[in-house]
Amino acid sequence: MLTLYTATTPNGWKVSIFLEELKSVYGLDYNVIKVDMGKFEQKEESFLKMNPNGRIPTIDDDGFFVFESAAILYYLAEKYDTKNLFFPAEFEKRVKVMELLFFQMSAQGPMQGQSNHFLRYAPEDIPYAKNRYQSETKRIYNVYERILKDQLYLAGNEYTIADMCTIGWAASATWAGVELTKDEYPNVVNWIERVRSRPAVESGLSIPTRNELIFGDWSKAESAAEAGKKMIKDQIENSSKSLL
Amino acid sequence: MLTLYTATTPNGWKVSIFLEELKSVYGLDYNVIKVDMGKFEQKEESFLKMNPNGRIPTIDDDGFFVFESAAILYYLAEKYDTKNLFFPAEFEKRVKVMELLFFQMSAQGPMQGQSNHFLRYAPEDIPYAKNRYQSETKRIYNVYERILKDQLYLAGNEYTIADMCTIGWAASATWAGVELTKDEYPNVVNWIERVRSRPAVESGLSIPTRNELIFGDWSKAESAAEAGKKMIKDQIENSSKSLL
Repeated sequence: MLTLYTATTPNGWKVSIFLEELKSVYGLDYNVIKVDMGKFEQKEESFLKMNPNGRIPTIDDDGFFVFESAAILYYLAEKYDTKNLFFPAEFEKRVKVMELLFFQMSAQGPMQGQSNHFLRYAPEDIPYAKNRYQSETKRIYNVYERILKDQLYLAGNEYTIADMCTIGWAASATWAGVELTKDEYPNVVNWIERVRSRPAVESGLSIPTRNELIFGDWSKAESAAEAGKKMIKDQIENSSKSLL
Repeated sequence: MLTLYTATTPNGWKVSIFLEELKSVYGLDYNVIKVDMGKFEQKEESFLKMNPNGRIPTIDDDGFFVFESAAILYYLAEKYDTKNLFFPAEFEKRVKVMELLFFQMSAQGPMQGQSNHFLRYAPEDIPYAKNRYQSETKRIYNVYERILKDQLYLAGNEYTIADMCTIGWAASATWAGVELTKDEYPNVVNWIERVRSRPAVESGLSIPTRNELIFGDWSKAESAAEAGKKMIKDQIENSSKSLL
């Protein structure tokens, strides 16, 4: 049996979206275990055996462990997407998917994540850092805007794991202080709507729990920020665990 | 003919190291074009057609363009490493390579890069940010230390593109304010020596030009920092281009 260790974050959603797609097309069944990051469960020895990086998402597929969200997408695609519906068989198309997976992992995720940190969680107000990461996040959406000018999805005209990898972060851009408006990012906004019209995407975005922020309930934003701030404070105070 | 667009940076070295390995084993020939990032050459329209992200490295393989350093490694492995010497054929081993490629791209590269930024290039001194990224960079080397406890290379006991992806950043850790000492990181230090004993690695690390920093000549550090600072200042002042 396949088990997903996850939490309500854009990195976790990448995998829950794909698992929902695989369930819908192939009937693939899986378990979900919610990891309590506030309690450092992801830094426990038993977890580090599955994922030496001590992060979510992580999967345990009958004793075979995979970490790094996009590596999990690759693994699931190669193993379970036997009709190549979400990761094309043709080599040059695969390379385009890889480009967008790596761009998401090296740029959109980390930079938008830093923007979240300095806007929502950091114990100090540091305008230089806020501006740095918001600018970089906007630049990254300009790149997506350019890519989507001539195609429906990130890696071409077919929906792939590259879109699954990116949609959760894109749906959360406001949280990082970046408004993806129709005026400034028309292709990105249309792409978000196109991807979110898929039932598996919407159900994947609600695993393990529904995050009200990306479904537009901003009244919950304050408490989410407080929880994040507390976690950062705990990490700073508990550096022996946060260095794991 | 294959052309590599690159500059003297750890991301460029990933690809030049692999091309040197491929040249040595298979006789693969390639051109190198040095991109002058100080002049924003990577943001010119002709460059953005090859790489919408406007960064190096980028390759042009007879009109097929690939961007994102690790996607280029994947492409070159699948196309040219026909004996699977550097990217194993066996599925589960491939997944381990993918994990480490994605970990490098999402963690080591971006976080060590931010540490470089706040320690060497930022126009303001921001202790919180310096500490944040140096701590995270150390944490990442603790992860590598754990991984290398029971194996010779990052993805197992065989040298792969995951090692090529990581070595240039590891060799530059001092620049980010992180000393990889034998006491604290014995497995990492041994791995660096093991990887750097390969002639293709040392020649790849000198493409397009030799970077004295990673070969231990610290007298050049000051001028390297000045060039970096100037580039950051230009980017801030020239936001129309830096947003591309």
